[in-house]
Amino acid sequence: MTLTTVGKYLVNSLHDMGIKHVFGVPGDYVLDLMDRFVDSPMKLINTSCELGAGYAADGYARVNGLSALVVTYGVGGLSAFNAVAGAYAERVPMVVISGAPHSKMRNSQTMMHHLVGHYTMQLEAYRQITEYAVMLSDGASVPDKIDEALDACLRSKRPVYIEVPVDVVDQLCRQPLPNRQKSALVSNPDALNEAVREAAEMLNAAKKPAVFIGMEIRRFGLGECLMQLLEKSGYPVATTIGGKSGIPENHPHYIGVYQGGFSLGTAHDIIEEADALLCLGAWMTDMTTGGFTAHIDPNHMISANSEIVKIKHHFYNQVILKDFIEHLTNALKSSPEPDHFHTPTPYKYNSNFIPTPQKMMTVKRFFERLNQFLDNTMLLVCDTGDVIFGGAEMYREQKESHFSQDYYLSIGYSLPAGLGVSLAAPDKRTVVLIGDGALQMTVQELGSHIRFNTNALIFVLNNNGYLIERLIHDGPYNEIQTWQYARLPDVFGGGYGVKVRTEDELELALQEAKKRSGQTVVIEIVVDKMDSTDTLALVGERVRKISNNHP
Amino acid sequence: MTLTTVGKYLVNSLHDMGIKHVFGVPGDYVLDLMDRFVDSPMKLINTSCELGAGYAADGYARVNGLSALVVTYGVGGLSAFNAVAGAYAERVPMVVISGAPHSKMRNSQTMMHHLVGHYTMQLEAYRQITEYAVMLSDGASVPDKIDEALDACLRSKRPVYIEVPVDVVDQLCRQPLPNRQKSALVSNPDALNEAVREAAEMLNAAKKPAVFIGMEIRRFGLGECLMQLLEKSGYPVATTIGGKSGIPENHPHYIGVYQGGFSLGTAHDIIEEADALLCLGAWMTDMTTGGFTAHIDPNHMISANSEIVKIKHHFYNQVILKDFIEHLTNALKSSPEPDHFHTPTPYKYNSNFIPTPQKMMTVKRFFERLNQFLDNTMLLVCDTGDVIFGGAEMYREQKESHFSQDYYLSIGYSLPAGLGVSLAAPDKRTVVLIGDGALQMTVQELGSHIRFNTNALIFVLNNNGYLIERLIHDGPYNEIQTWQYARLPDVFGGGYGVKVRTEDELELALQEAKKRSGQTVVIEIVVDKMDSTDTLALVGERVRKISNNHP
Repeated sequence: MTLTTVGKYLVNSLHDMGIKHVFGVPGDYVLDLMDRFVDSPMKLINTSCELGAGYAADGYARVNGLSALVVTYGVGGLSAFNAVAGAYAERVPMVVISGAPHSKMRNSQTMMHHLVGHYTMQLEAYRQITEYAVMLSDGASVPDKIDEALDACLRSKRPVYIEVPVDVVDQLCRQPLPNRQKSALVSNPDALNEAVREAAEMLNAAKKPAVFIGMEIRRFGLGECLMQLLEKSGYPVATTIGGKSGIPENHPHYIGVYQGGFSLGTAHDIIEEADALLCLGAWMTDMTTGGFTAHIDPNHMISANSEIVKIKHHFYNQVILKDFIEHLTNALKSSPEPDHFHTPTPYKYNSNFIPTPQKMMTVKRFFERLNQFLDNTMLLVCDTGDVIFGGAEMYREQKESHFSQDYYLSIGYSLPAGLGVSLAAPDKRTVVLIGDGALQMTVQELGSHIRFNTNALIFVLNNNGYLIERLIHDGPYNEIQTWQYARLPDVFGGGYGVKVRTEDELELALQEAKKRSGQTVVIEIVVDKMDSTDTLALVGERVRKISNNHP
Repeated sequence: MTLTTVGKYLVNSLHDMGIKHVFGVPGDYVLDLMDRFVDSPMKLINTSCELGAGYAADGYARVNGLSALVVTYGVGGLSAFNAVAGAYAERVPMVVISGAPHSKMRNSQTMMHHLVGHYTMQLEAYRQITEYAVMLSDGASVPDKIDEALDACLRSKRPVYIEVPVDVVDQLCRQPLPNRQKSALVSNPDALNEAVREAAEMLNAAKKPAVFIGMEIRRFGLGECLMQLLEKSGYPVATTIGGKSGIPENHPHYIGVYQGGFSLGTAHDIIEEADALLCLGAWMTDMTTGGFTAHIDPNHMISANSEIVKIKHHFYNQVILKDFIEHLTNALKSSPEPDHFHTPTPYKYNSNFIPTPQKMMTVKRFFERLNQFLDNTMLLVCDTGDVIFGGAEMYREQKESHFSQDYYLSIGYSLPAGLGVSLAAPDKRTVVLIGDGALQMTVQELGSHIRFNTNALIFVLNNNGYLIERLIHDGPYNEIQTWQYARLPDVFGGGYGVKVRTEDELELALQEAKKRSGQTVVIEIVVDKMDSTDTLALVGERVRKISNNHP
């Protein structure tokens, strides 16, 4: 049996799993391994900083189904920490690979640069935010460990961590096993049957059943399963913000984004009046419940997540979401005519936008215009802040065309995540919505967009500070330094930037952006300091309350 | 007994310990606590991102002796992770304070935004990189916990972590105890005496004794102690890069920076030929030993660190560095005339710099000119890369005027650290030396310099990529996007920037910088892609070797 090397085993495994771009920042402990990536058919995307690389890998994985992040030891791995934590929170499958000092240095406890305290510190820290974390040692054991790590990543849709000391990279190891059975979770058949039977009874007996889907439907690739359930049952379906575009919004069963008291479209009444609510991969968080303004009777709820089903207040373990949806579809009675509940009407933002010359921009008018501008060739990546709420109101016919962190909510995410999305979907145009405070977090990755020639169109909503916090709890800390955002592309060496203050300026900017469809474009939209979407105004008040008091 | 609140207790304790500026980024879980800082005599410095705030707090602590970092839960705390890890590695006393969700949310395990997996995740991760980590719960126990945390921070010169759920901020608690005894480590008298006796015997018998000091001398404030030992003994003294400016470089005993084969001045021969070498707070790392090119016989070594002494190959525990130096000073024979070893000659860079018009800048010529430019009103903050080596060659008469991470070596550190240094020493001018690759890591904090009106003078050495890595191990990943660095101040809303290509342009830029002594100034120095200090050329080759092989 011919042998390979650890570096090649890792690189080839990732490539075989469909990864075409790898994100990272070089550092001396990872340069040998980076060479293996450079020698591979994959493209190494070296960003300006590791946090940016991590967010980019997150965005890439959401489109591609898997991503890889390659960093150096200590200064690299720990700078990416928040991005990987976000991927863990939001179930994004990402393989984090960190270089590390030579094993002999570790074994002799030699003080090497980038070391924090002791040699297993980074591994221990990463155990907190990954599904599986391992330090590779000898070549003989490496293939099994890499296989286990990659299986765990795909199975859990969560990051895994592989630490590769420099001396291990070129150690010999066995070739990949040709017909290896991937380790996957399976349902307990009896638990599955009992859960499906109970759920079907509730749903079949209901007068006003409804479905509420969340991001797990998208992450576990269950869009088709879901569609079959909807087609058979005729149920209306709402989504969380994170689940948005898990179903095309022109689907006749689609009723909008549900978020408790802040819901859009007809979703609010249909979901809250449902006498049997089937939640699929939708987590009941402060965000998805509109800051706990949701009025849903737990006695009407069936909540299926990746490997657990909750009905009313009891749980079924070892029930895999896909199995549950498929078996439940079979057990539901067929209702081709959804006449026994409210006729679903897809939510659609006013699209008859006529610009008023010299009228100063407002947030509402911006989103009205954006809704008209967006088409099915565009992917939307929304940051945290008012843009996550405005973005949720955009009409999206295209499946898998909306991206945001609606649970972890890390500001600054969207700009580098947009880099990852753009590289994973080069035939689309990535539209990034970001506030000024968020942009300041990760601004350097605008340079990476330009460097890697993304065609991203980046809207910077400039309200001179942290608006969402002003609405929650104001103070001098919510003011930030005023930058000239539209001039950033120029300073970063390419792309195009323009500042917009009025509605007619926005028209010109959009025309210019259309023309420059192969280029990174920044459009800065200047709005009033306290201007917001209606939703954010409500949310701010509510979040303030729940940050301080139990609802 | 009147009561106070948890928030006030924390804020007042920090203020009483000499903190005047607090660094952080707001987020909803920490806004109430931030209000307590806003209401205090301390100034809240809200940077653009948490990594920058962390580095700034690190720089501030190195000048001020203690600093505080205030961040929000999850997205904030985990973004600062690398900066805090660096402070742990380099023994920088920093109090990390993170907001957290309401305790009722934690107790009911409610899924709140910014949560990663479970509610103790961040606390567990921070345990890895802090001396003490605690989540505050009820007011009654809070004062003791805060006291313990602050004592641990000062005692260990390492970060500590305090997590403050929003509901705890305004809970009532007791006032600070007026005459509280601070918990401090003490020497075991017998171990101390034995260690001192053995060390004094070796040193008093030696023909060519020498002293080698590292960063702990500075961090533990032992400069005066050290001076007394030197005055009595007459020993020559070298420093690590991190220990540089722990002693004024015009001191007659100063012999330069020792770093094995890359040493500067007369340090190399004196240290390596010493028949008794007294290392005080100097760690034997890959950096301090010049990539293990040091030739020091362990049988001649006495190595005293914060609370441990190693002589030859045996250890004395429970021996505090300060006690050891003081007792050793008493035990050493007095040698007012240091005639029995090489006459120490302070290293001094060529200072007869005459610019050649239109001559393209080189790294060496830049450092020659910088050495002439620097004076005792300036503090020097060096990033990792060629600038840490060039910076080490600068002549510094002023004590505590040189700052760098010579062990953790995180690129991008110096720009935000310079913000902290500048705010801690407003009567000085902070000079930052940073490469282009490093600047891209933390560029947003240039905006913070401008926002808080620092008078920092920032030299950006632009060689279009990661030079140190090119020299260690080149590959396409060492190329970065070319930015217009000199135009950054303008885009970030203030300050002054200028690009320098030739020696006469540098003169004009320095004149302009002198004039703008109250303003943030960026001077971009364009040099050839492979141009470096002589030291870096040697280091690159050596590091490459030790990254892959045990020396």
